[in-house]
Amino acid sequence: MEVVVNAATSVDGKLSTRERRQVRISGEADFDRVDRLRAAADAVLVGVGTVLADDPHLGVKAEQRRVERLRNGRPANPARVVADSRARTPPDATCLNDDAETYLLVSAAAPEDRVERLREAGATVIEAGAERVDLAAALADLEAEGVARLLAEGGGELIYSLFEAGLVDELSVFVGSLVIGGRDAPTLADGEGFVEEFPSLELAAVERVDDGVVLEYRVD
Amino acid sequence: MEVVVNAATSVDGKLSTRERRQVRISGEADFDRVDRLRAAADAVLVGVGTVLADDPHLGVKAEQRRVERLRNGRPANPARVVADSRARTPPDATCLNDDAETYLLVSAAAPEDRVERLREAGATVIEAGAERVDLAAALADLEAEGVARLLAEGGGELIYSLFEAGLVDELSVFVGSLVIGGRDAPTLADGEGFVEEFPSLELAAVERVDDGVVLEYRVD
Repeated sequence: MEVVVNAATSVDGKLSTRERRQVRISGEADFDRVDRLRAAADAVLVGVGTVLADDPHLGVKAEQRRVERLRNGRPANPARVVADSRARTPPDATCLNDDAETYLLVSAAAPEDRVERLREAGATVIEAGAERVDLAAALADLEAEGVARLLAEGGGELIYSLFEAGLVDELSVFVGSLVIGGRDAPTLADGEGFVEEFPSLELAAVERVDDGVVLEYRVD
Repeated sequence: MEVVVNAATSVDGKLSTRERRQVRISGEADFDRVDRLRAAADAVLVGVGTVLADDPHLGVKAEQRRVERLRNGRPANPARVVADSRARTPPDATCLNDDAETYLLVSAAAPEDRVERLREAGATVIEAGAERVDLAAALADLEAEGVARLLAEGGGELIYSLFEAGLVDELSVFVGSLVIGGRDAPTLADGEGFVEEFPSLELAAVERVDDGVVLEYRVD
């Protein structure tokens, strides 16, 4: 499976404010770039924190791209995948609607009643890991379901976990021309943090987009 | 006074690990770029956290650049300036040696005995602000001392405070091709964080340097 991480940050690496409020970091050209990435993906992965904070749809916006996918025998939208160790996704979350298939990655510690309610809401549940989702195992299960290209959109806890597990193949970051600041604001890669043996990237492309810049990396 | 902020971060905006341990983020070409910035500055500003963590020299490394400064009737090295509200700089800190003049920016809350010991160690003390350094007032004092171009090198608390006070004219960031991660690792701009009216930048230049990229911004 190929795992592509994409996110937009301020120049100081923040995904949003300390209050987890979304900030318009990029613009139309970058939104279109992200839509292209989604259209090329079999599934879009986010962490439950992102679902709780933003209730995202994660679908392909451009009708032409959805039609193109259908013409190629694929579903109009990529599947949605939520990394959600404790099954905290609300049953009425937008990412559980009928616009695409939804996978919920949970750990063995997820309360069975919440898991059951999410199954009833339409989610396909993949259990992997004891207290936290074992991402390597869960992604292997997804691959067996036909997900060959996975786009991970955040947040920073999920992105850190993907790097920690050595699962990332490509990273693209739109760096917006603003400062968000805040020692408690979420960043591109949160988690515990590395203290040695940092994931090393290869800068593959640099492109000005909107009023910022997109940095594209391959992971060594 | 012109205030230029320069720093090196990982792709996720971190200045160092959660343990505050310095990481080699850039390489020789970027070190040389920073040396050029220092040689062009009248003074180099850091926060006391950086002094305590790294004990930096802050001087110009290339002899040719020091000679050039002397030939132009300037001191070989720019002055060192430490933003140090409580006068926590150790009296034996490298930035207090004889290689350049040293200014200590303290608040009225700085214990008088510590301030006195730092004066004895050679620092010129500028007091501004009640509990925290009033950076606008302190920088105005520095300007009266002849500092027309100030290079601020971090850390993230100082850089945030400079943006908060609207004192930054230019920002350059070397973005290294690695992930440091860590929700507690210091970032380019820490502090409280903005929640609205984010400082807005204009991307002036993008240049590949070493295995990363330097982003240069003007502040609107």
